[in-house]
Amino acid sequence: MVYITRRERFNAAHRMYKPELSDDENYRIFGPCSNPNWHGHNYTLHVTVRGKLNPDTGFTMNLKELSLLIREYVIEKLDHKNVNIEVAFMQGKIATSENLAIAIWNQLEEPVLKAGAELFKVKLEETENNFVEYYGENQKLI
Amino acid sequence: MVYITRRERFNAAHRMYKPELSDDENYRIFGPCSNPNWHGHNYTLHVTVRGKLNPDTGFTMNLKELSLLIREYVIEKLDHKNVNIEVAFMQGKIATSENLAIAIWNQLEEPVLKAGAELFKVKLEETENNFVEYYGENQKLI
Amino acid sequence: MVYITRRERFNAAHRMYKPELSDDENYRIFGPCSNPNWHGHNYTLHVTVRGKLNPDTGFTMNLKELSLLIREYVIEKLDHKNVNIEVAFMQGKIATSENLAIAIWNQLEEPVLKAGAELFKVKLEETENNFVEYYGENQKLI
Amino acid sequence: MVYITRRERFNAAHRMYKPELSDDENYRIFGPCSNPNWHGHNYTLHVTVRGKLNPDTGFTMNLKELSLLIREYVIEKLDHKNVNIEVAFMQGKIATSENLAIAIWNQLEEPVLKAGAELFKVKLEETENNFVEYYGENQKLI
Amino acid sequence: MVYITRRERFNAAHRMYKPELSDDENYRIFGPCSNPNWHGHNYTLHVTVRGKLNPDTGFTMNLKELSLLIREYVIEKLDHKNVNIEVAFMQGKIATSENLAIAIWNQLEEPVLKAGAELFKVKLEETENNFVEYYGENQKLI
Amino acid sequence: MVYITRRERFNAAHRMYKPELSDDENYRIFGPCSNPNWHGHNYTLHVTVRGKLNPDTGFTMNLKELSLLIREYVIEKLDHKNVNIEVAFMQGKIATSENLAIAIWNQLEEPVLKAGAELFKVKLEETENNFVEYYGENQKLI
Repeated sequence: MVYITRRERFNAAHRMYKPELSDDENYRIFGPCSNPNWHGHNYTLHVTVRGKLNPDTGFTMNLKELSLLIREYVIEKLDHKNVNIEVAFMQGKIATSENLAIAIWNQLEEPVLKAGAELFKVKLEETENNFVEYYGENQKLI
Repeated sequence: MVYITRRERFNAAHRMYKPELSDDENYRIFGPCSNPNWHGHNYTLHVTVRGKLNPDTGFTMNLKELSLLIREYVIEKLDHKNVNIEVAFMQGKIATSENLAIAIWNQLEEPVLKAGAELFKVKLEETENNFVEYYGENQKLI
Repeated sequence: MVYITRRERFNAAHRMYKPELSDDENYRIFGPCSNPNWHGHNYTLHVTVRGKLNPDTGFTMNLKELSLLIREYVIEKLDHKNVNIEVAFMQGKIATSENLAIAIWNQLEEPVLKAGAELFKVKLEETENNFVEYYGENQKLI
Repeated sequence: MVYITRRERFNAAHRMYKPELSDDENYRIFGPCSNPNWHGHNYTLHVTVRGKLNPDTGFTMNLKELSLLIREYVIEKLDHKNVNIEVAFMQGKIATSENLAIAIWNQLEEPVLKAGAELFKVKLEETENNFVEYYGENQKLI
Repeated sequence: MVYITRRERFNAAHRMYKPELSDDENYRIFGPCSNPNWHGHNYTLHVTVRGKLNPDTGFTMNLKELSLLIREYVIEKLDHKNVNIEVAFMQGKIATSENLAIAIWNQLEEPVLKAGAELFKVKLEETENNFVEYYGENQKLI
Repeated sequence: MVYITRRERFNAAHRMYKPELSDDENYRIFGPCSNPNWHGHNYTLHVTVRGKLNPDTGFTMNLKELSLLIREYVIEKLDHKNVNIEVAFMQGKIATSENLAIAIWNQLEEPVLKAGAELFKVKLEETENNFVEYYGENQKLI
């Protein structure tokens, strides 16, 4: 097994809140991240896949192909978007980094498999001080 | 003269657009940055002040004090906010990095002077690939 | 399981040495790091916790809370301190990065558990070229 | 077990291609990386070893010694070199990051063992967007 | 005046040498960088332009347009190329970072002017420890 | 004129204080940085020199030579040292970043001139949030 990682980036707006709660209640749980007028981030995404080396190329997986898959299934849906309003796979979910990482995993798992590799990890950095890692362990979106 | 720089960060939502234009016209000028549903960034701000060394401290300016000024006059007004909607000093202006940098300069010039130093440069990074620098050369906000 | 990491930083002085050895003997083992007049570092700490998502918040653990725990149990005791002289949990131990990482693990394991998550990894960077990772595998401080 | 990592860097030229294919066929597989006139990278290498702490030093392994091993067995053979032409352990192999990481593992496994630690991971960054990790799982060079 | 900077990257092979000298003489001047089999780098380029804000957009210059200019006049000619062999504007010149920065300036000065801004600085990083800055002060390529 | 910069690093202990003041008074001015038991930093130093290109080499100045000068005149005197106790050129001065940057300038100005270039800037980063720049404008150490 060899592990290969591709970094991609997207910029998005979001807020963290539960629609059934008041603004004050959301603030108590989510703090300034619950701002009803939104805020946003430069998200950095690391997608790691693993596999045996392809004997024809010496690649785990062609990184160009991996990059295109990430762009098609993830970046195009999130970049310069509002996570809460515009992203189909986040509808009705709380826009935490944890949920985003799980949703990105769910977007990529099958396309990576079809491309002959195995998705191993999704790492999502929200700021330079915070990041989430998900290894596909059956966590449901909240 | 010695120059000293403090880095601070804020996360905000914005869109770039002119209210008198249609969404299509705005898209033609500002691209995906004009998204009416907003997007956002982790902004990184570098504030440089200069001065002679204070003979009592060996400081150009106490960086703790500089940091507090930046937080009071800039970060608290921008962090986890919507630049277009919630930031008084950006009302009626286009939320470009250029305008933001100039507005931040205008916020800080006087407080830094009162603290005994001279504001020299405001540098604002919007992404790892883009940044703006402003040295106070009388540019008006657009 | 989802893994979430918080980065914090502290600046400290230390030296690596064994009190029962002469300065020359310590130099032979620890090199310039044994300097009796101390040297220091900007330490960067990554604390990773894991858990299932809280169904009320979509969080593994509230990062604000994690940050406060790290500050209370680790940063306040190490930042702007002399690791050898002033840090109770390092008394009588060699101030290597390995020992520091284990001691930080020991400081955080219980508070993180009480907060409803599980400490997974402590990563401590001493310089841009060196870092230590500890996963709580019963290593005693030396 | 404690894990310790040393970062080293080298600058090298390479191309990715199979000698039995034409330039056009190589381009179809490897894209611009197959350029017969070479291109190159600043490679960043992270070598992680693990072990119990040495009761005499509080070290997993003396990082100075680890750095010297990496320089002797890896950096001196790769730095300012042409990976395809001048590096004995890459002869007849495709100069992918995957193969390089495996070859670096093979170079280091025994010397690290002799030094009393266990090689755990080789991580090789080719650009800021791409990196490979190898944990010694019997992958043969292609 | 407001200054705006765009970062772009390219990976290239090169060697530093003078064709009229022997390999030994070139080694004495340029060290391992003179390796006749080439080596290479991940070059990072920062292009800074300045100007008054466009009253229609709040931009110094549209960064998308600047990025396209840099790609057309610089990146496409250098990325995944051999600087000595394949880059027309470096023919007969020594492939130092200084010369590269000057040549990049010469490539960009006019297109930036035509786009309504003024080229202010070209900064070229060869490694994390070395960079060159050129402000267009009539230095000829060597 | 072309400007070239070399990055070097050193790790040192220091405290900021005036010996004629009590610990309490020093704390009031310098905060936790006045800790009598010291603290420390990973300092990052950027030294920029400028000059015309050498017609024999295409260099402003040989960076290998610049690196050796910085190591001889600066790094060897500061690395793994206590700035207050062990560094001759800081004796009797307050160990602020400003003073350190000026002292480093004074150490390097003449050796760089003898090497045929002109020292242009010393930039000293104390943490990722703080840095000082000095251009040799006759500031005396405090």
